[in-house]
Amino acid sequence: MWLMFQFPLCPFSRKIRLLLGEKGVGYELVRESPWQRRDEFIDMNPAGQTPVMADDSRNLVLIDSQAICEYFEETEEKSPMISGTAQNRAEIRRLTTWFDQQFYGDVVAPLMNEKMRKRLVDRTSPDAKMLREAMKNAVSHLDYTDYLLDHRNWLAGATLSLADLTAAAHISVADYLGGIDWRGHDLTSRWYAGLKSRPSFRPLLGERMEVIVPPAHYDKVDFL
Amino acid sequence: MWLMFQFPLCPFSRKIRLLLGEKGVGYELVRESPWQRRDEFIDMNPAGQTPVMADDSRNLVLIDSQAICEYFEETEEKSPMISGTAQNRAEIRRLTTWFDQQFYGDVVAPLMNEKMRKRLVDRTSPDAKMLREAMKNAVSHLDYTDYLLDHRNWLAGATLSLADLTAAAHISVADYLGGIDWRGHDLTSRWYAGLKSRPSFRPLLGERMEVIVPPAHYDKVDFL
Repeated sequence: MWLMFQFPLCPFSRKIRLLLGEKGVGYELVRESPWQRRDEFIDMNPAGQTPVMADDSRNLVLIDSQAICEYFEETEEKSPMISGTAQNRAEIRRLTTWFDQQFYGDVVAPLMNEKMRKRLVDRTSPDAKMLREAMKNAVSHLDYTDYLLDHRNWLAGATLSLADLTAAAHISVADYLGGIDWRGHDLTSRWYAGLKSRPSFRPLLGERMEVIVPPAHYDKVDFL
Repeated sequence: MWLMFQFPLCPFSRKIRLLLGEKGVGYELVRESPWQRRDEFIDMNPAGQTPVMADDSRNLVLIDSQAICEYFEETEEKSPMISGTAQNRAEIRRLTTWFDQQFYGDVVAPLMNEKMRKRLVDRTSPDAKMLREAMKNAVSHLDYTDYLLDHRNWLAGATLSLADLTAAAHISVADYLGGIDWRGHDLTSRWYAGLKSRPSFRPLLGERMEVIVPPAHYDKVDFL
């Protein structure tokens, strides 16, 4: 049985959970708070980051969300999410990195720092200026997804791919933390509503992160 | 013909160049200084980062160093660099990300900022404290590569892989910028000397970045 070390608002863990949900791969959740830098966790993953997937029965430990996705893409044939020509696959991977690095760095990481880390770890208040900046960045990013979805059915092309799952994972964390203003982003809103209604997404939307309460629209499929 | 948009000290471009060198894929270099945020370059890659690979004859643009590596790995059979079992491939990708994110963030990015960006762009002097910190981080990282090479022939396992090329790309930039103290890291030194003597590495070692002069040992295979 696969164990997944994660916490409810980890976007990189959500990316894997959406992929495994689509593929029908079972796993058990293990709560890990990477900011605590637990010795046993650092021994398993020197980078100290979630998610980590471990299968003790096969002495397997998988680390790094993209390496984990590629592993399951190679070993589980159901619902391929990095598919098509080499060019299509390059576009899927480009956009996956875009969300894992650009969207995460511009939007998700500052929101998590201000609204989660400061509350749970530092016991201080969020910096309003940082929050405004992250929310402004989110608007630019949704302008870009609107642009992509104006030209394509899904973010990276004609079919649902890892780019959509990754984008939805990051957007869902930003949305939980109140960082997304959906007004004026109709194409992205419709695309996100479609993803929210998938069985792979429902379990994520039901989870809560301790004292941090999401906005009322967060888990609704009709959220506009 | 492939064009590669890059600059001599871009570690992510070096990673691709080593891969293409091993695979015998030809390309032409186009000098791009991403910090200038040239409009035509941002139009091509909204992330504004090098490397970008473009093949006008096939209307192809590839973005993000890992997506580019996976593309050539899929389309060029010669010298596979993400090979072996799914587990081996996961380990190759884990370590590739380790160098692209951890080593880059802890060592290469601060060195590039202090010794390249400040000199070329800001016209200010490097911060000695930041440099010391980056060099201290490099020592911890080489302790880790020593540990890996004490257990394996190559960083990710029994054969040369993308993990070695990626590590060498980042280490070479740090070394050019005087950030690596090789003393006490015999295993990593020997591994790096072996990589430096490969035909794929020689062209990189001959290039210079304007006014920035590397230490005397930088391009020597016998550098200790």
